[in-house]
Amino acid sequence: MGRYDKPILVFQTDFTYKEGAVSSMYGVVKCVDRELEIMDGTHELPQYDTWSASYRLYQSLEFWPKGTIYVSVVDPGVGTSRRACVAKTVDGYYIVTPDNGSLTHIKKFIGIEAVREIDETKNRLRGKGTEGVAIFHGRDLFGYTAARLASGIIDFEGVGPEYPVSEIVEHPMYEPEIGEGFVKGYFEIDDPNFGNLWTNIPLSRFNEAGFEYGDMVEVTICHKSEEVFHRTVLFHKSFGFAGEGEPMIYNNELMKIAMAVTKGSLIKTFDLGYGPDWTVEFRKQI
Amino acid sequence: MGRYDKPILVFQTDFTYKEGAVSSMYGVVKCVDRELEIMDGTHELPQYDTWSASYRLYQSLEFWPKGTIYVSVVDPGVGTSRRACVAKTVDGYYIVTPDNGSLTHIKKFIGIEAVREIDETKNRLRGKGTEGVAIFHGRDLFGYTAARLASGIIDFEGVGPEYPVSEIVEHPMYEPEIGEGFVKGYFEIDDPNFGNLWTNIPLSRFNEAGFEYGDMVEVTICHKSEEVFHRTVLFHKSFGFAGEGEPMIYNNELMKIAMAVTKGSLIKTFDLGYGPDWTVEFRKQI
Amino acid sequence: MGRYDKPILVFQTDFTYKEGAVSSMYGVVKCVDRELEIMDGTHELPQYDTWSASYRLYQSLEFWPKGTIYVSVVDPGVGTSRRACVAKTVDGYYIVTPDNGSLTHIKKFIGIEAVREIDETKNRLRGKGTEGVAIFHGRDLFGYTAARLASGIIDFEGVGPEYPVSEIVEHPMYEPEIGEGFVKGYFEIDDPNFGNLWTNIPLSRFNEAGFEYGDMVEVTICHKSEEVFHRTVLFHKSFGFAGEGEPMIYNNELMKIAMAVTKGSLIKTFDLGYGPDWTVEFRKQI
Repeated sequence: MGRYDKPILVFQTDFTYKEGAVSSMYGVVKCVDRELEIMDGTHELPQYDTWSASYRLYQSLEFWPKGTIYVSVVDPGVGTSRRACVAKTVDGYYIVTPDNGSLTHIKKFIGIEAVREIDETKNRLRGKGTEGVAIFHGRDLFGYTAARLASGIIDFEGVGPEYPVSEIVEHPMYEPEIGEGFVKGYFEIDDPNFGNLWTNIPLSRFNEAGFEYGDMVEVTICHKSEEVFHRTVLFHKSFGFAGEGEPMIYNNELMKIAMAVTKGSLIKTFDLGYGPDWTVEFRKQI
Repeated sequence: MGRYDKPILVFQTDFTYKEGAVSSMYGVVKCVDRELEIMDGTHELPQYDTWSASYRLYQSLEFWPKGTIYVSVVDPGVGTSRRACVAKTVDGYYIVTPDNGSLTHIKKFIGIEAVREIDETKNRLRGKGTEGVAIFHGRDLFGYTAARLASGIIDFEGVGPEYPVSEIVEHPMYEPEIGEGFVKGYFEIDDPNFGNLWTNIPLSRFNEAGFEYGDMVEVTICHKSEEVFHRTVLFHKSFGFAGEGEPMIYNNELMKIAMAVTKGSLIKTFDLGYGPDWTVEFRKQI
Repeated sequence: MGRYDKPILVFQTDFTYKEGAVSSMYGVVKCVDRELEIMDGTHELPQYDTWSASYRLYQSLEFWPKGTIYVSVVDPGVGTSRRACVAKTVDGYYIVTPDNGSLTHIKKFIGIEAVREIDETKNRLRGKGTEGVAIFHGRDLFGYTAARLASGIIDFEGVGPEYPVSEIVEHPMYEPEIGEGFVKGYFEIDDPNFGNLWTNIPLSRFNEAGFEYGDMVEVTICHKSEEVFHRTVLFHKSFGFAGEGEPMIYNNELMKIAMAVTKGSLIKTFDLGYGPDWTVEFRKQI
């Protein structure tokens, strides 16, 4: 099997690159098979945040070639009884991850065909002083198993015993509410770099409710039911249509409704956040 | 065409690695051609700062092999009428970028042989829910086009229509002033990690004015014409020649005059910045 | 020689990815030999901190395939008389680094077979305006020499003259003190991401002193002999065994005793640090 017959390994973790953890983890992959191609997804997921892990998988996975193996390690329960697994999507991707909510979006929006628990008696790094280490499954279990799978040393069955897809741990998700001239949802994630907030409202639903590019929209944002933002805001296709420093509504790269401040940070400017406590209502101006 | 006949793709953006954007962008490249080699230039350019994008291209481009395709995406005008382009330098590199000032230094110091506007009807990602997305040209346009060019799917002509090099958007640049025993310039960029500041004064001009390693130099820094720093500072070839915590003058890796604090941050210690408002004068001691 | 006969190059520096330094350095490697495989170790080592450089090498090196060339550039003395060297470990790895304490752990815990000073007259980048640059040996000396070595252009002898291993610059290291029912050591490094602290006490010594998983242990931390923390803390195999926000003792990925706060930061919660001034004593409860 040549280099390009072996799937790419993409890694996302909350390890950061500040110390040697990522290096050790990647070294283990290269020891399994020098030919494997490793790509950084991100190592800057918010610590212990399995919701973010789930969202970023959903945001990125399907832009990679079919067969890609995505290793996701946000693992607050490392060394406890949470399952370590490999999930196979209905369209042929593999995800190697603790089963702790990190598969929520992929299961819902793409679909998981089968899931297997990693058999630690077979698929765990041995030697190099790793026996007795219970806190670094990224290096000793997830990276190692993913490398063996990519390399063809094991196949999907070789990961370990299958368990029902219905048992996969999921975060709760909420549907937007749509009516005549309004849509109500919540901010489910941020763009932490640019300070944008992304809602759970698909553009298609937004359009159904009657909103179109160029509209001025009445926006009410509540935090725990308390109103924290009430303004009329432009909805348009990109940031440059609003004035610098102005808030605006757009559809993001996943075709969901989002809000930004042009050349600024919505989150910082208006002190906003995300999660089920942060609801947003868009209403047509009368 | 084998793997090593295809140019390397180097990416620089202001996306950071905090979420899934870089991953999606790189995945698209790998879907175009699995064999393409992707390298990180940097994803931590200051947000919306096309001057920094331009400077970092100039700092790094020519250290890569001839033919390398550098993708630069600092794109505050994404989705508006700014041009998306591919520029070819006189010495055989390609730069894929919004035409928004990001080509300033390359055009001035290296030279651009030809520039073409990316034809979105041909060189834009289709499918995967990307239709209707206007805010992520890094993924849908620049990365995708660069991958097609690197892969040989299109040649330079296949990018889209040529336009005059004279139409390339440029930032203003300022020349240093040189006289008997003094040189006057400004800080045009920083080293954001070590807190150093780099002037627009080439070492050669500095030497012409009579400054030599080991000299103690009178330095006056002004912000908007107001004096904010006035000291006698050592000019030497590296940091270790000054005492710890002391400011010093050196020539940087681009052979321009720069200032640092040995094992410290010039920017933080003296509360300095860069840009045309930050002028600096070096004068020989009498 | 094919691609996979050439060792991997892993880089660790304190440069960060904020500007163009890493890009230039990697470009130089690719100009020496396009086929070389470059991996990021980390570029976020604390500035000028050769102790951290030494520790991270020790943490990661041996997880890579034998023969791997690790380039470590934390180089506060760049351009001065400190030696630039390539060390060969007793088990077949190469480290390219300034000889400034960065080899301390590798020398002590793995062993260095031989060390050679880089001959700048042969192994230094020429052209591209690099003559006269004394401040960027990562690009002009270390990366370049490592690439030549990996590529087979030079062998180990071709690096430059050998010098005695005994002359390698080392940081002082301290041994833990062990007695009946207690162990005393110090925090020698942190996990800067999760806010954990790692001691110099091996798990084996800890066990010898009678501590076992599940024990509640009396912990006293002193800063410059002043007591700053005194508590009874759980020792267990992973974080999830303690309550959220609680401190706990565990053995880290290098089989040394460490402390954390479950789903929190020990360093921030208790305002602790590392270095010889931060001693820690573990005592069995009576």
